[in-house]
Amino acid sequence: MIVKEYIEKNRDRFLEELFELLRIPSISAQSEHKGDMVRAAEWLKAALLKAGADKAEVMPTDGNPVVYGEKMIDKSLPTVLVYGHYDVMPEDPIDEWNTKPFEPVIKDGRIWCRGANDDKGQLYMHCKAFEALVATKQLPCNVKFMLEGEEEIGSKSLYKWCEEHKELVKADVILVSDTSLLGWETPSITCGLRGLCYMQVEVTGPDKDLHSGLFGGAVANPANVLADMISKLIDEEGHITIPGFYDDVRVLSDAEREAFNKAPFDLEHYKSLINIPNVQGEKGYTTMERTGVRPTLDVNGMWSGYIGEGTKTIIPSKAYAKISMRLVPNQDFKKIAVLFENYFRSIAPDSVTVDVKFLHGGQPYVSPSDMPAYHAAEKAMEATFGKKPLPFYSGGSIPIISGFESILGIKSILMGFGLDRDAIHSPNESYGLDNFYRGIETITLFYKYFAEASK
Amino acid sequence: MIVKEYIEKNRDRFLEELFELLRIPSISAQSEHKGDMVRAAEWLKAALLKAGADKAEVMPTDGNPVVYGEKMIDKSLPTVLVYGHYDVMPEDPIDEWNTKPFEPVIKDGRIWCRGANDDKGQLYMHCKAFEALVATKQLPCNVKFMLEGEEEIGSKSLYKWCEEHKELVKADVILVSDTSLLGWETPSITCGLRGLCYMQVEVTGPDKDLHSGLFGGAVANPANVLADMISKLIDEEGHITIPGFYDDVRVLSDAEREAFNKAPFDLEHYKSLINIPNVQGEKGYTTMERTGVRPTLDVNGMWSGYIGEGTKTIIPSKAYAKISMRLVPNQDFKKIAVLFENYFRSIAPDSVTVDVKFLHGGQPYVSPSDMPAYHAAEKAMEATFGKKPLPFYSGGSIPIISGFESILGIKSILMGFGLDRDAIHSPNESYGLDNFYRGIETITLFYKYFAEASK
Repeated sequence: MIVKEYIEKNRDRFLEELFELLRIPSISAQSEHKGDMVRAAEWLKAALLKAGADKAEVMPTDGNPVVYGEKMIDKSLPTVLVYGHYDVMPEDPIDEWNTKPFEPVIKDGRIWCRGANDDKGQLYMHCKAFEALVATKQLPCNVKFMLEGEEEIGSKSLYKWCEEHKELVKADVILVSDTSLLGWETPSITCGLRGLCYMQVEVTGPDKDLHSGLFGGAVANPANVLADMISKLIDEEGHITIPGFYDDVRVLSDAEREAFNKAPFDLEHYKSLINIPNVQGEKGYTTMERTGVRPTLDVNGMWSGYIGEGTKTIIPSKAYAKISMRLVPNQDFKKIAVLFENYFRSIAPDSVTVDVKFLHGGQPYVSPSDMPAYHAAEKAMEATFGKKPLPFYSGGSIPIISGFESILGIKSILMGFGLDRDAIHSPNESYGLDNFYRGIETITLFYKYFAEASK
Repeated sequence: MIVKEYIEKNRDRFLEELFELLRIPSISAQSEHKGDMVRAAEWLKAALLKAGADKAEVMPTDGNPVVYGEKMIDKSLPTVLVYGHYDVMPEDPIDEWNTKPFEPVIKDGRIWCRGANDDKGQLYMHCKAFEALVATKQLPCNVKFMLEGEEEIGSKSLYKWCEEHKELVKADVILVSDTSLLGWETPSITCGLRGLCYMQVEVTGPDKDLHSGLFGGAVANPANVLADMISKLIDEEGHITIPGFYDDVRVLSDAEREAFNKAPFDLEHYKSLINIPNVQGEKGYTTMERTGVRPTLDVNGMWSGYIGEGTKTIIPSKAYAKISMRLVPNQDFKKIAVLFENYFRSIAPDSVTVDVKFLHGGQPYVSPSDMPAYHAAEKAMEATFGKKPLPFYSGGSIPIISGFESILGIKSILMGFGLDRDAIHSPNESYGLDNFYRGIETITLFYKYFAEASK
């Protein structure tokens, strides 16, 4: 039987299986879901064994377990290490979901569920591509799986696990589907990822909430102070004001910028997709550059005082913000964390105290487009999409990818099948059925072309 | 029996009764407590009848009911209208309470409970002072009670109720205990209250939370934008930047400022009371002036994006703030609300949309210190505290007080017995037992001296 036929025949079962995985609310950011992390890992171990792995195990770490599986058919053949993550983002704001966040629903040709795309849906394509090749006896190389449960919170345990299991995961390339296509009609392979530096700040004024009438005007209000301080992090032209922040940013040449801006981009479509009146960003750069090759600073969350119904007249005791920066080559998240903290403390007035915490980070990553694995991915996508994919610099981050290179010495191929519309990290996350099935087929072809190129 | 003896004999019962009232979680800001508002009103009606009122009733309004009661002994005698409120502030942040917010506890000579001071404790002193005078057959004037359940949310229904019941509540003076003393050793009568203008703002960027990697840098982040906009409301010197904001502020003469700053004030004690490293406020004014005679702008609450545990890498769709301004004579909250909205909209970038809501307001109030009722209050406090009370301009607001003057044409005496330490509106609100019992005694003396002065 040819591989494509096998996939076609097993369409419904593949989906039913994925739904089982999607129903496990494996939110790594929230400690109440510890048990769900283990359930998801155990479920994946069983899934790998059923798909044809020779062995698979749930390997404990200090945090959430790593699922490792492999099928070694011939040591002389190349080895592909598949990476994916079974943890997902929190589902809030929950009242903006049209369906239950952890109950997958099919509508308009898409699967609607937290994790449908990121990354359970994309990860599961790999399990099924592997199964299809094994079942049809066409697996052309060795395959290893390394599936983690902490990607959304910084992959802390996986860094350590990789240090301890370098031999176990030895491979020629790492294959990852955790990114998006430029569009369904514009296939692409992600060659660059931004790094991340995620901080949390706390501004404290009085030791308790105060009556805003009795004390208002005489006591620094931490919410107003925090707003001032956040405001001082970016100037009027959209440049980040932290001293030294841009020191290590690789500046693109005019030729590179021109090439970079050649990818198709429709500003009106972009605006209508997310329903914004206008774009906004760093002066002197295009929207593509702003997300692709320039670093950013965003407040991801901010809270202070009374946030319930109606009114409460207080000066809050504390104000908080979660602030993350996306980094580009050659910025270093550890250095940026220090620069951020120093600057943030330096702009605090003497009427408050400030606490700054580093939550997680990852280095930016660049994947060369001239290695055999890249060409295999290119050929595979060209076969299924009918178009040669474009190399693409994504604004997103998968911090562990640069870790793989530094710890394991292995390059990654970021062949993801998501679309911008998928609303990953947002309410109403979805993943197209077409994307899921075409992804499976493309992955099987990647193995074929990669094995051929390695002969 | 003399009045003081009666109070002494009934100490414990007075407290037990107050505790019953404190246990009703009558939070006016939260609609889930609608039933508790009615329970508190019914409880007070019964309490007034037991204390000696000829009649008492729970009078419905569009919002929470007004409790009205009276004892008319002789139409030729003066009439005192007692005002108080049975609604309380929300209890959050709930985890900062040392005891249950709605279960009163006695410790260190104080009652600890939400509403212990504001205003159930202070209101109930009036019920018991009235009872003591009736029981000992020494009530020297007519007494009316008007107790509302919406003070903490702007007294909207009471304005309308007053319009409709001008004849019913006709009186010579309104007596209110809903303010604080300068100190236990520095008794005071509040002669000025700031007005209030409470707004809520909403900044909307994309129509859903976005992945901060994929979109970060190119799309305006409503949390960052809101921080910028809040920052622009107050300048570096602490002046509010809203055009026209100070136009109607009555400027004090040098002599007035000098007199104003004569009240005892210890900056180090003030700082240590609320544990702040330094005070902060409008340049050119003392702390007393900043809270007493200058207007303010404070963020009372602010929220956007992910505020849970850990990290979530999003550009929030929306950011919100509750912002209130304390006003001084002769500012008008309706005019200020318009100035605020116009300015706030004018500073929004074109990459977001902005919504501004007026939540509630009240006019500033000044009570003359040369009327008979003021002198009666002065004499009563001098008798119980052993010191003549100082006239004091409070930073707080009781918006309805200026409404009483404009609608009913009656002046109010603000004879409150709270202390700064009482943490009203904050976790661990308390009210001293000494304050409670001395308050009762002082109120009975007020009636005596007021009746004498009116002969």
